[in-house]
Amino acid sequence: MSVSPHSHVKTVMYGKVRLYTGTSSPELASQIASYLNVNLCDRDIVTFPNDNIFVKLHKSVRGQDCYVIQSTSIPVHRNLMEMLILIQTLRLDSAARITAVVPYLCYTRSDKKDQPRVPITARLVADMIEVAGADRYMTFDLHADQIQGFFSIPGDVLYAYHVLIDPMKELVSKMEKPVMVSPDLGFAKKARNYASSLDIPLAFIEKRRLTNAPTAKALTLIGDVTDRDCIVLDEEISTGNTIGTAVKLIKEHGAKSITVVFIHPVLSPGSAEMLASLPVDNFITTDTIPISKEDLAFFGDKLKVISIAHLLGEVILRANQGRSVGQLFNE
Amino acid sequence: MSVSPHSHVKTVMYGKVRLYTGTSSPELASQIASYLNVNLCDRDIVTFPNDNIFVKLHKSVRGQDCYVIQSTSIPVHRNLMEMLILIQTLRLDSAARITAVVPYLCYTRSDKKDQPRVPITARLVADMIEVAGADRYMTFDLHADQIQGFFSIPGDVLYAYHVLIDPMKELVSKMEKPVMVSPDLGFAKKARNYASSLDIPLAFIEKRRLTNAPTAKALTLIGDVTDRDCIVLDEEISTGNTIGTAVKLIKEHGAKSITVVFIHPVLSPGSAEMLASLPVDNFITTDTIPISKEDLAFFGDKLKVISIAHLLGEVILRANQGRSVGQLFNE
Amino acid sequence: MSVSPHSHVKTVMYGKVRLYTGTSSPELASQIASYLNVNLCDRDIVTFPNDNIFVKLHKSVRGQDCYVIQSTSIPVHRNLMEMLILIQTLRLDSAARITAVVPYLCYTRSDKKDQPRVPITARLVADMIEVAGADRYMTFDLHADQIQGFFSIPGDVLYAYHVLIDPMKELVSKMEKPVMVSPDLGFAKKARNYASSLDIPLAFIEKRRLTNAPTAKALTLIGDVTDRDCIVLDEEISTGNTIGTAVKLIKEHGAKSITVVFIHPVLSPGSAEMLASLPVDNFITTDTIPISKEDLAFFGDKLKVISIAHLLGEVILRANQGRSVGQLFNE
Amino acid sequence: MSVSPHSHVKTVMYGKVRLYTGTSSPELASQIASYLNVNLCDRDIVTFPNDNIFVKLHKSVRGQDCYVIQSTSIPVHRNLMEMLILIQTLRLDSAARITAVVPYLCYTRSDKKDQPRVPITARLVADMIEVAGADRYMTFDLHADQIQGFFSIPGDVLYAYHVLIDPMKELVSKMEKPVMVSPDLGFAKKARNYASSLDIPLAFIEKRRLTNAPTAKALTLIGDVTDRDCIVLDEEISTGNTIGTAVKLIKEHGAKSITVVFIHPVLSPGSAEMLASLPVDNFITTDTIPISKEDLAFFGDKLKVISIAHLLGEVILRANQGRSVGQLFNE
Amino acid sequence: MSVSPHSHVKTVMYGKVRLYTGTSSPELASQIASYLNVNLCDRDIVTFPNDNIFVKLHKSVRGQDCYVIQSTSIPVHRNLMEMLILIQTLRLDSAARITAVVPYLCYTRSDKKDQPRVPITARLVADMIEVAGADRYMTFDLHADQIQGFFSIPGDVLYAYHVLIDPMKELVSKMEKPVMVSPDLGFAKKARNYASSLDIPLAFIEKRRLTNAPTAKALTLIGDVTDRDCIVLDEEISTGNTIGTAVKLIKEHGAKSITVVFIHPVLSPGSAEMLASLPVDNFITTDTIPISKEDLAFFGDKLKVISIAHLLGEVILRANQGRSVGQLFNE
Amino acid sequence: MSVSPHSHVKTVMYGKVRLYTGTSSPELASQIASYLNVNLCDRDIVTFPNDNIFVKLHKSVRGQDCYVIQSTSIPVHRNLMEMLILIQTLRLDSAARITAVVPYLCYTRSDKKDQPRVPITARLVADMIEVAGADRYMTFDLHADQIQGFFSIPGDVLYAYHVLIDPMKELVSKMEKPVMVSPDLGFAKKARNYASSLDIPLAFIEKRRLTNAPTAKALTLIGDVTDRDCIVLDEEISTGNTIGTAVKLIKEHGAKSITVVFIHPVLSPGSAEMLASLPVDNFITTDTIPISKEDLAFFGDKLKVISIAHLLGEVILRANQGRSVGQLFNE
Repeated sequence: MSVSPHSHVKTVMYGKVRLYTGTSSPELASQIASYLNVNLCDRDIVTFPNDNIFVKLHKSVRGQDCYVIQSTSIPVHRNLMEMLILIQTLRLDSAARITAVVPYLCYTRSDKKDQPRVPITARLVADMIEVAGADRYMTFDLHADQIQGFFSIPGDVLYAYHVLIDPMKELVSKMEKPVMVSPDLGFAKKARNYASSLDIPLAFIEKRRLTNAPTAKALTLIGDVTDRDCIVLDEEISTGNTIGTAVKLIKEHGAKSITVVFIHPVLSPGSAEMLASLPVDNFITTDTIPISKEDLAFFGDKLKVISIAHLLGEVILRANQGRSVGQLFNE
Repeated sequence: MSVSPHSHVKTVMYGKVRLYTGTSSPELASQIASYLNVNLCDRDIVTFPNDNIFVKLHKSVRGQDCYVIQSTSIPVHRNLMEMLILIQTLRLDSAARITAVVPYLCYTRSDKKDQPRVPITARLVADMIEVAGADRYMTFDLHADQIQGFFSIPGDVLYAYHVLIDPMKELVSKMEKPVMVSPDLGFAKKARNYASSLDIPLAFIEKRRLTNAPTAKALTLIGDVTDRDCIVLDEEISTGNTIGTAVKLIKEHGAKSITVVFIHPVLSPGSAEMLASLPVDNFITTDTIPISKEDLAFFGDKLKVISIAHLLGEVILRANQGRSVGQLFNE
Repeated sequence: MSVSPHSHVKTVMYGKVRLYTGTSSPELASQIASYLNVNLCDRDIVTFPNDNIFVKLHKSVRGQDCYVIQSTSIPVHRNLMEMLILIQTLRLDSAARITAVVPYLCYTRSDKKDQPRVPITARLVADMIEVAGADRYMTFDLHADQIQGFFSIPGDVLYAYHVLIDPMKELVSKMEKPVMVSPDLGFAKKARNYASSLDIPLAFIEKRRLTNAPTAKALTLIGDVTDRDCIVLDEEISTGNTIGTAVKLIKEHGAKSITVVFIHPVLSPGSAEMLASLPVDNFITTDTIPISKEDLAFFGDKLKVISIAHLLGEVILRANQGRSVGQLFNE
Repeated sequence: MSVSPHSHVKTVMYGKVRLYTGTSSPELASQIASYLNVNLCDRDIVTFPNDNIFVKLHKSVRGQDCYVIQSTSIPVHRNLMEMLILIQTLRLDSAARITAVVPYLCYTRSDKKDQPRVPITARLVADMIEVAGADRYMTFDLHADQIQGFFSIPGDVLYAYHVLIDPMKELVSKMEKPVMVSPDLGFAKKARNYASSLDIPLAFIEKRRLTNAPTAKALTLIGDVTDRDCIVLDEEISTGNTIGTAVKLIKEHGAKSITVVFIHPVLSPGSAEMLASLPVDNFITTDTIPISKEDLAFFGDKLKVISIAHLLGEVILRANQGRSVGQLFNE
Repeated sequence: MSVSPHSHVKTVMYGKVRLYTGTSSPELASQIASYLNVNLCDRDIVTFPNDNIFVKLHKSVRGQDCYVIQSTSIPVHRNLMEMLILIQTLRLDSAARITAVVPYLCYTRSDKKDQPRVPITARLVADMIEVAGADRYMTFDLHADQIQGFFSIPGDVLYAYHVLIDPMKELVSKMEKPVMVSPDLGFAKKARNYASSLDIPLAFIEKRRLTNAPTAKALTLIGDVTDRDCIVLDEEISTGNTIGTAVKLIKEHGAKSITVVFIHPVLSPGSAEMLASLPVDNFITTDTIPISKEDLAFFGDKLKVISIAHLLGEVILRANQGRSVGQLFNE
Repeated sequence: MSVSPHSHVKTVMYGKVRLYTGTSSPELASQIASYLNVNLCDRDIVTFPNDNIFVKLHKSVRGQDCYVIQSTSIPVHRNLMEMLILIQTLRLDSAARITAVVPYLCYTRSDKKDQPRVPITARLVADMIEVAGADRYMTFDLHADQIQGFFSIPGDVLYAYHVLIDPMKELVSKMEKPVMVSPDLGFAKKARNYASSLDIPLAFIEKRRLTNAPTAKALTLIGDVTDRDCIVLDEEISTGNTIGTAVKLIKEHGAKSITVVFIHPVLSPGSAEMLASLPVDNFITTDTIPISKEDLAFFGDKLKVISIAHLLGEVILRANQGRSVGQLFNE
């Protein structure tokens, strides 16, 4: 993706861009505002002693094109509700159009009934976003792309691929024998696409046996990693347990170096310290979820955070102007 | 209210009663189950490291009449989401009817735009409950009865009055010169109704002046409390600041004794200790919200918690059987 | 409020303003049209012998920003239906946006189930306005502000306060000892706000006792009115019975002069004559509902009708242009 | 149709039948209640001085199968609103199922845009009935059967044919040379069906010329009526002008006798007297709309009113029991 | 109708016009595109071996005013689904507005329950168009105009009259004794309107008897056709059986010449050949449905196809610009 | 699964079971009816010459529990529409509950936007089923389980696994060295589950390289098949090309025997003959889609069709009775 300059665009179709952010993604929102050369709109967000949130916009948004930027990261439910309240407030204030910009959408792993009597919470979340009043949504790398179909409203599901692939290419260019490792069968297809773009081979880890030998119940590594520079790609890291086991396995198989690339840095409490202690040479992630200073400190300069801010900014711009987003990726 | 025996009821119109509870009201739910002589239905509620909640019902509810008992008390957003997920799970499992039983409904104070650019979050909450799949709702003492009109689905808005009035009558019967004190103009009408039932006079506290003297900006006490046994009635106590000020004012005016009656014990952190230290003789409240053991300890035997369990149980029974609830209160 | 000149506004976001009126508010609609420097749009409204109403617009409204100005005053149901038919006609003719401008909204007193087995007709009316096709609504001084939450569509709930407060200030400036009197506990908060703006004391009338003396069941006047210039403030006057009783009580307490200010002149048959005969020095009201010539004749020059036309015109203008309405009131 | 005895029916599927009526059809409702051997349910319907209607049910309808019987005859809008309020009240009181029983549905002539910029009010009325909360509807002889498609909810559109055809057969049996006359091209198909059942010839009146002679703009009578017993069939009579002209034309053509059969006696003010003065031997109509005693007096024994009560009662019974209604008519 | 030049129109209110077509109406769509001086938008429509259709738009339609031109002619269900998929694709790609342009709408004859236990498929089709995401619809000569009321969205129902009347006038001007013949009572009103515009007499064919003679069950011709130039007008011709019988009857009655005018050339397999063999001098129809080359060959120069393309083009233009369509027809 | 006898079940909660079938699955429907010991309900399904379908039910379904059994197999759009019309007809006839039973649901492969400007047709199909009036749905082995979240209504997604696993176990019991082969990465997880139940190893075919050798673009077989009894498992077979290539590859790698198991026999024209000619020893499939006699003839006794009829029948029974379906599978 090459983000094009946009100074010469004149037609504004949906009123002016108005950027709002909840409390979960202030820094990302700031950078998007910078890219768009606008200010974040002022609003109060207050928590009352009874735990209820109150919102007040400082200026009218009547007839404007509003964007609520909010990752539904930990604390998930508070962040989600904050976003919904912001959306309703904009709607009741007669905004012309409201887009929920949710870099990390919660509950996407609850996307089907693979056993009886369980919820499909991702659909519930989609319904909640719609009932609050969003006209469109934007998000990054859903757990399953089918979740798009949970929404009645149109949306832009973006891929961190577009910001990660260049740094990864650079990295690979310095490697002798790179290999892409997928730590999970469910993620295999996405890993394959990255591997294809990078023109490197693919290996993956399978939790079940490929032979019927009784001892084969352990993890199996399919593909060759010995003496190779391994790039382990994962969608989101929460506890880090999966990635920890994968790294250990790869290491045992004689990996030369290990780079861990992951899209959503959920990083549940304690995970950063654990991850930082793994025999991993480099971590690469994005800012779909903000990482605390404390967690950043654990990683030191082993961790590189690639920002999605410019990409999101450009997509918001194009959405506002009624221009193609797909074109941005030569699609 | 006299809760009638119900052993002879035979017709079940909406399938069998199935009681579920989230994590916020387990004890209340248990008591309701006892009243109805059924078991609480087993379900797993798990919180994943990424803060997402997962629910699984142990048994099918196909064609049954389900009730989700959950106060949306602190932590408000987690409790709310837990209830919504339970409701959706029941709906996807083909329950015949789902009732959200929410003894304390959150966000009822955000019920109007009394200034521009603010939300009406109570309407958002009502929309969320409906979109999750509830067919009906039950709740207690809404901040404003108009909130009933925020729901498209029918509901039973119950009043703690029906469980509080008898203990209050007993209390009053032992007082020499009782008076009802309303600490807030907005709550004056409800206080009036209690006072009328108890056949005692009413006083109230007004935050603004009744004369145009420059110093009159302080709180004013209207009505006579000197040497009287004061019953201060409030809807919910969160920080306890309002009630604290009221008690102080009444005391200054020479009250003989002070009883504080309040419906929803929100009790934000630190409030219990503060309240217990006030010159209050008795506290009476309900269990629409569970009170922690720590908070109970602060109050000692000064606090009496009157349970709404039997009332709720009876209302659930009648709802299940298609019998009048209003009749229960001779209405 | 200072209504700003608007000649320099250029951007029209929602098509051109098209003003329509039913048969209930022709004069108010005319004045709004004058303010906006547009013509009222021609339409036929015919009543067939079978009592069915027929509507035909003279010109296409395709892509335009349409406003239907109609008070749902007596005859309530015909006026309501006329408005709904107009809205549907505009929608089927592909209007870009339709705003129901209802200076007096009917059924707002039926806003809650305060007893079992009664309707919440205000919610029904809101649903009817939405199902007919309104995108927004505008109205004045709802009986309860919570009624905003009955609508799914956004709206502008305006307050006659903004047109009444200046005449009232002028009036007060000529009084020696003014006092604001609220004839009803339910209206006390609004009266307090007016009193605060006018910087005058507040008194009010309570229908129940403040002491437990057996004779105290009569109306009670709280606050001092003796030898004072009383301003009685009410929301709507229908039969005038409440205000009549209030005036009598105040007079008995030795009021020096009485001014009655009320927002919605419902004035059911016979009420004007009765009101005019009361010992009231001045009446002030608005034109949210048109007053018949006959009724005006009863009052003579005792009654001053303050028009909301310019205020509504300015709000319509701002809605059309996507500019803040709150700002108009420095909010 | 032979209405079958129903004493042996045992299964009640939708709760018990609860009959409510507004103020427009009390007598019809009574007769239906008699047929069903139940009492009409008590309710208050009050009109406040501000023209707002208030409703209160005397008993709970929780879980019951409710029917609101109300013709939307003159005064159309009040009767319509009364019905909608009743429906909403039943819904909010948790009725299991609500059926709007509207023997005469208003606004059915506004069923299409046959010119630009006019409403389709019949669709609006259908939407209003649905949004109020009706689950089903019943009505008689819609102006166009396509109006069924305006409802999302299912309904029973009944035909007065089933109660009129026997009296008409008896009448015809006494005639020498009967002929059916349709006064309007739009009603020709229905007249044809009646004529077919009665096995009598058809004539009709066409408002436009069948030749291009310049004088042919007058009404033309197609078919033979001279010395014949004419049965003029119309859907609804409002002013009676159409029927008056038709009668005059037939008389001029030498009709031996004239019987006027019409389904809905709208009878706008003054019409009864005019109709009674026409050279018509017999009038036959139904009680889909109640006829005032004054109007009945004009007709004397010239008018025979055939009741739809038993038919409606039987249809309600079958609807309640989940039995076929079509079967009732051997369809 | 005089289609006005439109080169000087400048304001575009709903984004730019984007024309799409499914596979049923490519030629008509092309002509509309020519009229509007735009290109048809490229899209892939692929049928997979499992009979599923796949669509891909070549360019983004974000914020544009999109029109899907597709007759739901044979194969009806494939054409209908193709249109629905196109509409959904445009919606998910964030089109600003989507109009379903359906010159021939399927299932309009299934528009009422004239017997028990049958569908109202026209309502189902309307619901499907709406649920796919259309904001508006355009169509020609519905079987019953009431079908407009099946849609919640506004639409433009156009009449082929506007393109047929001039050719018909020219034809009539060359005739000595023209007469309009309606082959069906149900279509009589439309035939009357054409006859009125052409200032010629009307005759029609009735399938049932006008006398009670036992032999009268055959078709009856009402009005004079002997030695006349007959113009038989029909809505749609499918098998041609009705028109064939009508032509035969007219011929038997001594018609001088016969012209058959019909709006929708459904032409089921085999019908063209049959029709061409009838003693008909001229056929006139439109291109609401494309006629295959094979069918055209049967007719030779006996058939004249009048295009609706310019009319549709102009209506699309006006819809895009927010200008009156009714005005186009001097309505 | 052991389908339990059900003669002793007494409570029927949703009216009686009424089974309807369109024209796509008559034999399956018959077998379900047999299992349930009921008759298929009679209905007419007629196709008019204009390709429109007409439906008429022979008996009333008022208050009954209706099931429409229809595979949306080739011809997909006609079969889909037939089902939708049946559903609407049942709804308009006041069925108590309607379940769309769709053993093979069309368009499930169009379940996400994996490129810009494409549809999510599976969501459209879900919306169409809901708008027609289905209350629930039943189907088998969706392409992605997330498609459950496209429906707002609850459903039972069943798995052919429950009928296939026993025959497969029997088959495996006779094999020496069995191995499960998945022909596609996307289907790997399902194959893994079958392999696990059968306790046999897993191999699969990957279309992209696992090494970066330039020649590796061909298909790769991962896992050992040499001298093994291969069970190739696929979801649906349409053209058979994928399976053909897979079989060829396995054969080249020295498979001892090959069994192809597939769930949905789409079998596009020509595929049966091709498949029958492959070096495959056994084919096993189900009757979610009926296979023509011609196609069956190609396979001879190489093909075994395992019926889902009893399973579906049991699930319908349990749905009707409000009993657990999950329990049927010990879940």
